[in-house]
Amino acid sequence: MSQHRHPGAPGRTGAVPAPPDLPEATVARLPEYLRALHQLADAGHETVSSEGLANAAGVNSAKLRKDLSHLGSYGTRGVGYDVGLLIDQIEFVLGLTQRRAVALVGVGNLGHALAGYDGFASRGFRIAALLDADPSRIGEEINGLVVRHVDELPRVAAEESISIGVIATPAPAAQAVADQLVAVGVTSILNFAPCVLSVPEGVDVRKVDLAIELQILSFHEHRKASLTALPATGGTLTPLPGGLAATDTQEAIGT
Amino acid sequence: MSQHRHPGAPGRTGAVPAPPDLPEATVARLPEYLRALHQLADAGHETVSSEGLANAAGVNSAKLRKDLSHLGSYGTRGVGYDVGLLIDQIEFVLGLTQRRAVALVGVGNLGHALAGYDGFASRGFRIAALLDADPSRIGEEINGLVVRHVDELPRVAAEESISIGVIATPAPAAQAVADQLVAVGVTSILNFAPCVLSVPEGVDVRKVDLAIELQILSFHEHRKASLTALPATGGTLTPLPGGLAATDTQEAIGT
Repeated sequence: MSQHRHPGAPGRTGAVPAPPDLPEATVARLPEYLRALHQLADAGHETVSSEGLANAAGVNSAKLRKDLSHLGSYGTRGVGYDVGLLIDQIEFVLGLTQRRAVALVGVGNLGHALAGYDGFASRGFRIAALLDADPSRIGEEINGLVVRHVDELPRVAAEESISIGVIATPAPAAQAVADQLVAVGVTSILNFAPCVLSVPEGVDVRKVDLAIELQILSFHEHRKASLTALPATGGTLTPLPGGLAATDTQEAIGT
Repeated sequence: MSQHRHPGAPGRTGAVPAPPDLPEATVARLPEYLRALHQLADAGHETVSSEGLANAAGVNSAKLRKDLSHLGSYGTRGVGYDVGLLIDQIEFVLGLTQRRAVALVGVGNLGHALAGYDGFASRGFRIAALLDADPSRIGEEINGLVVRHVDELPRVAAEESISIGVIATPAPAAQAVADQLVAVGVTSILNFAPCVLSVPEGVDVRKVDLAIELQILSFHEHRKASLTALPATGGTLTPLPGGLAATDTQEAIGT
């Protein structure tokens, strides 16, 4: 993790430099660029072309250049981007120059997997607390941390300056845990429980639902299989359940 | 899981009805609607208003109506949507009317969590095979399935008609596993390894990177903290590492 070395805003008391506001899709791609840049740095590269970085991150290079231009980063013609500088810029924007403390609630199988995931530490996070409501789990040690009762959250949050809460409980327990996290001042939640959380304005929730990822893939599988089975005769009417119909595009059928 | 009851396309040999082509963002929201609809059905509701369904799924109702109009589903004024019919329509479009067989490669902590996740079965998927390259894991039984060596993938894929491959290996092993999946005809991959996979055209990859989700939350935390610390004096120049600057929007600073 690189040092936070931006110059600050001299002469304005209390003025902490704010990261620029960015399109959500750009924010979602910055971590990919960062991962690719760290790999390049580890391999000894000091500069990288936009094409090289785009390939390593799995996006197209026009999109990458546009994203980085939001950070004021345009690279140098014929040279490309300075790898170290771009790492610093992205880590600053993502707020990774401080190591954020994460509280993980729910230490079942998924919670264990998350608690044991090495990738967090190297990417700006520190699992600072493991919590569960099940008395049989309290006291268990995972990766050097002892599982504490979720009712200890207020004390844990104060001790560890918890910045992000991760919910890995079953769905029925998730809303109560979210309420407890919000009550102790946590304003960013990563939710693995398959349910929608209600949170006050100003609290960000990101959701990872593994079955939903599979269902999205299923759509593409279904479509590929259907198109393969269709004769290549151009557009066709697609009967949907209930007798409704939707017209396929020529482009999709023609493949 | 409801039965696939669309009428087919009589008179055209080999013509399997194709699901409509849909915006990717709509595809990503359909599983959310489906989950909410199943909860409504379980609670005995036969119809639901667009507002009710939108709330349950955590989206705004205008977006929901637009999404569902892509399926040819407009609801009935004063009544709303027929819950059962809409479930059938979404399940048909997502290809969930057949239970898709999933091969899971990599049974470390995360693989164990995925193998033990009850949600897959109720949502259209069947974990049909567990595979690993580590000899010490071969033969282990998880949720009634015995872990087999990844080299058995060709036989497993043929026996089980594997539709989707899930990669839960460490990053360095992931590309080779993806190549093996593609070689046996799998065209949809869900990748949990923190790396970009190269796959041929026609293969869909979705990626879940847990650290990236945290980094996206970190951006919002960082931004919220900075804005709170800033005096409310309107737009300001934000110094970035390397001496570059980006202008904050008035709107963001004004909060």
